[in-house]
Formats: sequence, structure tokens, C-alpha cells
Amino acid sequence: MERMETSYEHLRTLVEEGKLLPLREELLEMNEIDVAEFLEQIEMPQRIVVFRLLPKELAADAFAYLDSEIQREIVQAISNRELFSLVDGMYVDDTVDFLEEVPANVVRRVMAVADPETRETINRFLQYPENSAGSIMTSEMMELHDRCTVAQAMSQIRTSGEDRETIYICYCISDSRRLVGTVELRDLIFHEPDELLRDIMDADRALICVNTHDDQEKVADIARHYDLLSVPVTDNEGRLVGIVTIDDIVDIIEDENTEDLERMALMQPSDDTYLKTGVLTMFKNRIVWLAILMISATFTGMIIEGFESALAAVAGLTAAIPMLMDTGGNSGNQASTLVIRGLALGEIRIRDYFRVVWKELRVSLLCGSALALLNFLRMLVLGNRNIPMILVVCGAMFCAVIFAKLVGSSLPILAKVVHLDPALMAGPMITTIVDAVTLLIYFFLARSFLFG
Amino acid sequence: MERMETSYEHLRTLVEEGKLLPLREELLEMNEIDVAEFLEQIEMPQRIVVFRLLPKELAADAFAYLDSEIQREIVQAISNRELFSLVDGMYVDDTVDFLEEVPANVVRRVMAVADPETRETINRFLQYPENSAGSIMTSEMMELHDRCTVAQAMSQIRTSGEDRETIYICYCISDSRRLVGTVELRDLIFHEPDELLRDIMDADRALICVNTHDDQEKVADIARHYDLLSVPVTDNEGRLVGIVTIDDIVDIIEDENTEDLERMALMQPSDDTYLKTGVLTMFKNRIVWLAILMISATFTGMIIEGFESALAAVAGLTAAIPMLMDTGGNSGNQASTLVIRGLALGEIRIRDYFRVVWKELRVSLLCGSALALLNFLRMLVLGNRNIPMILVVCGAMFCAVIFAKLVGSSLPILAKVVHLDPALMAGPMITTIVDAVTLLIYFFLARSFLFG
Repeated sequence: MERMETSYEHLRTLVEEGKLLPLREELLEMNEIDVAEFLEQIEMPQRIVVFRLLPKELAADAFAYLDSEIQREIVQAISNRELFSLVDGMYVDDTVDFLEEVPANVVRRVMAVADPETRETINRFLQYPENSAGSIMTSEMMELHDRCTVAQAMSQIRTSGEDRETIYICYCISDSRRLVGTVELRDLIFHEPDELLRDIMDADRALICVNTHDDQEKVADIARHYDLLSVPVTDNEGRLVGIVTIDDIVDIIEDENTEDLERMALMQPSDDTYLKTGVLTMFKNRIVWLAILMISATFTGMIIEGFESALAAVAGLTAAIPMLMDTGGNSGNQASTLVIRGLALGEIRIRDYFRVVWKELRVSLLCGSALALLNFLRMLVLGNRNIPMILVVCGAMFCAVIFAKLVGSSLPILAKVVHLDPALMAGPMITTIVDAVTLLIYFFLARSFLFG
Repeated sequence: MERMETSYEHLRTLVEEGKLLPLREELLEMNEIDVAEFLEQIEMPQRIVVFRLLPKELAADAFAYLDSEIQREIVQAISNRELFSLVDGMYVDDTVDFLEEVPANVVRRVMAVADPETRETINRFLQYPENSAGSIMTSEMMELHDRCTVAQAMSQIRTSGEDRETIYICYCISDSRRLVGTVELRDLIFHEPDELLRDIMDADRALICVNTHDDQEKVADIARHYDLLSVPVTDNEGRLVGIVTIDDIVDIIEDENTEDLERMALMQPSDDTYLKTGVLTMFKNRIVWLAILMISATFTGMIIEGFESALAAVAGLTAAIPMLMDTGGNSGNQASTLVIRGLALGEIRIRDYFRVVWKELRVSLLCGSALALLNFLRMLVLGNRNIPMILVVCGAMFCAVIFAKLVGSSLPILAKVVHLDPALMAGPMITTIVDAVTLLIYFFLARSFLFG
């Protein structure tokens, strides 16, 4: 955030001048996210000096927001006692996130200093598949027995709530630890102290949960659909094992959006931000589909080769090829973008297939007619007087737009039917198919009307 | 959500058989979002019958989640007394959202039944520019004086908290209503009753706010950066006038992502979901850029025309054109997608320009070499023995990939510099530029080496 830039400037000066006491004062006033950003802006060995100035809790909170590279650096520089205090102060889900990114020797050191209970939890969490609900949840939720009274619940929250990631949504469990309902802190505040949780809890909400092995995308979908602040995670027996909170859900939503975009441009999704991804990784992420699409253009080349003598015979036929290809590609790209996004947000379902195609057919008739007419005028203005030739180009354009919109809207839905990611069926993929068909139509029309 | 499908089925049967009492029982057990979804699945006049079965609060909550078309239908069918109870039960931001979408006569009826204070608030909210923080905020936040004690604050929350959209973050204001800090409900619970808010509040958080006229994108950026459950909105004098809560922020994030995607495919962003947008609107959203890009392909056509006789002289030269164009377009699309996304998430800033270009240069050297080599083999395998011609195609391919990646990564950043939306500089726009340059390089190489 821009607003902090001048503060950081000032803090850097304090670091350079070695004024650690005033620096500490100012850091204490800041929130953990800005402290983390500041730590990322300075270099070793100052970074570790500043980090050591922070009180335990702020250090742990800020640490969770640091880039994994810097986390590793700090862990390697601090003592075992400091490391213990760090792990103790962090939420389990943040510790797990951090451990997933660092080398094995760092993991071993952290595990060695953690207390046995935390160690066991961390071990269990590390075993969940990547991007599963289990791998992103935290076990620090506020659990309450459904037999408690409101007063008992409040006193339990006062005793143990401080370590919990959220106390605003509390989870009611039965004797067998099954999730049976939720109760909001606001409900506890507005109810009489002697009421039973079982009577005031929202039992219906217990059904809105995910399994540890569900994909994180499902967590985000449920949170978005039901406007939840946290989503409970249960094991196969329906026992509550963790929650995913809204701050992590917002991150998931952005990650999923980035992944969709990367897939749409036919790249392997990258785990890191742009500037942090290495050149070789980027090359690997991009080259596979570039190569596949280049090879498949062989097909388009063959179509042209089969028609090369005819192209040579009529002036201007070849010149229209890029325009036809691009217009087809752009038309298909528009349709597929909207359908892929609609599918991702759940606004379009597989059963809407015919409604989508029917809509695209009408839109493409309008777009195709308008573009064909415009092209007719364009070619006239450019001084072309070969009317049959102009009509062939316009006809091919019209057909290309309709075909592109139908393919662009159909392929993402069909991909979903066969459990492929619809995002793969975006612009580049559509273009390759539309190119070949557009050229076939073009040459067919040319052969029929210009070489009759 | 799929899990509700069978319940809805069952509820529909109850509606059809006129079993209203058991139906009401079941609706009372459901949450407002599922009730809204069920109401959308049935038709008038049953819809209004079911809506009238709902108790006031559930009716208002469910109403806020309904599609605006259906909201209008319901408002037109209910009495003024029912309408009053509906408006009274809804949060102001939901009322404003609803009023922005319905015809003027419905707005007048709602305003007529609302109490004077609500009417004034609604009027003020309706005047904020579209997509501004003011237009999406709610005025129902929990405000506390910074001179209060914890005990006073808790009793105030008990008295007036039930109407507030959130009580988990409370906003501390000074005598002049200026926002001076925030205090979380959890802090109130963990502090002694006689402590002063001024001493326990987080004063730094008061700086993290937006102005009523800021764009909603800024609200989302701040919430995401600081992991906030709600973002305070202040007027030009720094007085607290509203908050935006996380559920609305999640919606903004998804809206902004959809908008970016639509711009990237060169469409006007649509306000509605795919299935609800009319054919004519879709046509209007899509045709402008399709036409502009088609016209600009004239340029590419001219390049080919100037070279038509040479193309006719060497067999296979024309056939390579689609492959070169597509590979260039795909390469540029990959780079621009990553840079646009990086800019949107704030991971790439304008000052990173040279780092980005340097990275793309290296990636494109790798991609270009690999693709040129692959193409060399491909053409040999296909039986082409004209080695100079093959080398010209490979050379053009290599240059096209490098040029495309540099343009694809530069244009979004340059767009940002001149305050254009970087999302406009995506695949289709890049392709049009890359096409022309690729062909120029191709023909230049061909002229130099094949017609020496």
C-alpha cells in the first residue's frame, strides 16, 4: 500500500543510524502486515536485528506474512529458544504453510523445538494432499459442547479463546465430537446466560461443511455462496477437525482466479508470484502448449498448401487470411471467456448448454452480419472492385464468426462434462480449431464462386 | 449448491399439494440463502404465497439475496404494510442495491413507506457514484465513543448491536465523529470492564480506511492486504459514515476479476450474469472491439499484398503464415496474462518494468530457440528439403516469439503508466500488433535469403 512508503523510508533511516529504541517504539505501533512488508524491504543482517526487536506475539504474527525465502533465512539465523517461541506464537495453519515451503533441515529443527501436541498436529496437517481443505485449515477453532449454557460458553471463550483464530463463529459438538451446529458470538451476547447452546445454535449450519480431502475450491465456493466467515472441516466420521477462515478463503479465491487465467493462456499454473518465479520454471510452464499448438498449426498449413495455386491466381485472396483468422479467433475468445467464467462462478451449469448455445447463435448472427457488412465497405473503400471476391471474403467472415462463437461456448461446457478444466478451452485453443475451419470455409467458398 | 437439490424437490411437492403448514416448518429450519434459491426456483403466484409464509426477519434476509427481477415482482405483489416491514428488516446497503435495479415507481413506493431516517440515508447512498465505496457501504456499523469503558461498550452493544451488520469490529469515534481507532469484540471480552476504549483500541487501524468516493477496487485491495473483516468508509472530513463488510468485499473481488477477464477478451464488462444478459446487450458489448481489430487487420493484409508475388514464387512460404501468427499471438498472450494479473494483485509495480522485461527476454530466448528447433525438425519430417526456406521460417519464428513476449509484457505496464486499464492489453490486442510485425520480419528474412 502506497500510504506506508514514507513510514518505511523513515524506519530505514532509523535502522541505518542504529537507533534501535525509537525504531522498536514505532514498530510496536504498526500492524503485523506492515511490519512484515518492512522486513521484506531491508536486507540481512539488519533484517534479523529488526526481527529480534519485536515482542514475541508481533514477531510470530509478522513472520506468518513473510515470503518463504525470508522465513527460511530468519529461522536459520535464530536460536532454538527463539524458534520455539516463534512456533508457539503462530497459528498451526501458518506454521504448516511455512513448513511446506522450506528445506527438510529447517522442518526438522522446527519439529524438534515444537511441543509434542503441536508436533503431532503439524505432522497430520502436512499429510493432507496439496490444496485440500485439510492442508489449509487451522485446528484452532472455538469448540463448545452443545450441552453447555450460554454462561458456560462465555466463560470457556474467556479462558481459551485468546489462542483461537476466530471466536466469532463457535462450533457446537456432540459427545462424539460430531459437528452438530454453530453459534455466533453475537448470539451468545444477545441470549440469556442460562439458555442451552443446543437450543440457540443453528443446527442447519452444521450441514454446511467440507471434508478434509475436498479441494480448496469447494471451500471457497461454499464460503462465497453462504457468506461465511469460516468454513468447518470434518473427517470421514463427521467429526470436526478444523476450520478455514475468511482471510485464507480470500487468498484461495485469488489463487483460483490466477490459476484459471494461467490455464486460459495455456500455461502451467505457477505457485509463486511473477517476479519470484525463475526463468527456467517460466520456460517449462509455457513451452509445452506453445509447442503443441505450433505443431497443430501444421494442419492449417496443409489446408493452405492444398490451395496454394488458387491463392496465387486471384490477387487479394491471401491478403484476407490474417483478418479472417484473427476475427474468428477474437470472436471465439469472447464467447469462451464468458462461458469459462460463468462455469467457475456457478452461474452456468452443464444443463444450461442449449440455452448458452442458443444465445451465442443469436449473438453471432448479429456480430457476423455486422462484421461482414463492415468488411464489404472496407474492401470497397480500399479500391477493390472484384465484387464476387469481396462477397466470398464476407461470406467466410460471417461463417467464421458463427462457427467461432459456437465452438467457443461449447468446448468449455463439454470439457466440464468430461471432467477437464473448462479454462483450458480458452482463446488459444479455440483459435487453433477456428483457424483451420475458417480457412476450409474460405477456400470452399472461393472454389465454388471464383473458379466456377 | 448440489446438496440442496433434493430438499428443493421436496419443498416444491409441498407447494404443489398446498401443504403450507409443514412447508413453513421446513422453511424456518433453512438459512436465508437457501430460502432465496428456493424462491427463485418456483413461479408466480406460488412464489408470493411462499414468501408470505416467512417470518419478517427471514423474509427480509432472503429478499436481499433474490435476483432484482424477482425482487421487483414481489414488491409489486405485496401490500404497503408488508413492504414497510420488509424495508425495516433489511440492511440499508441491501435496500440500496435493490433500489438501484428496480423501476422508478417501485423506488417511490419503497421511499414512501420507509421511516424518515431510513429515507434520508437511502437518498444519500443513492447519490454516490456507481462502484464507489459510498454506494456499497452500509451505515449499520457499531460505533463506540473512545471515552467509553469496556463495560459501557458491552452494554451499548447489547442494546443496539442486534441491528448492526457486524459487531465483531467496532469503530471508535471522537466527539467530532472522527474515526480514531477500532476495537475487536474479542478484545472487549478479554479486557477488564473498567478499562477505557481509548487505551485498548487499535489507533493504527483508524488510518486504514477509504473515502466515500474511492473506487470499490480500493476497498477490496485494502481488505485483502490487511485481512480485514470490514473496511471503514469516511467522508472528506475524516468522519466515519459507513463500513463495507467482508461478504460484500468477496463479491467485489469476484466482480473485478470478471471485469478484468471481459476486458482482456476485449468486451465491455456486463453488469449481469451470462444467462441474464440480453442478446442485444451482448452484441453491443462485443462488436466494437471486434470491428476495430478487423479494420486494423487491413494493415496485415497490406503487408501480405506487397509480398504476394514472392509468396507465389516459393512453395510453402504462404503455408507457414498461420503457424507464425498463432505462435506469436500465443507467446504474447502468455506474457501479457501474467503481467496483467501481477499488476491487478499489486505484485508487479510500474517501477518493476525493467525487471519484467529482462525476465521476459530470457524466457523468450529459451522459448524461441526451442520452438525454432522443433519447427526445423517438423518441416524436415514433413518432407521439406528447401533448407534455406526452413531456416527463414525458423528465424522468423524465433524473432516473433521474442518480439511477442516483449510487447506482451510491456504494453500492460505502459497502459498503467498512462492510466489506462492494463487488462485491455491482453491477447487479442497483442495479437494484432504481433501479427503485423511477425509478417514484416518473415518477409524481410525471405527477401534477404531466398531472393538474394
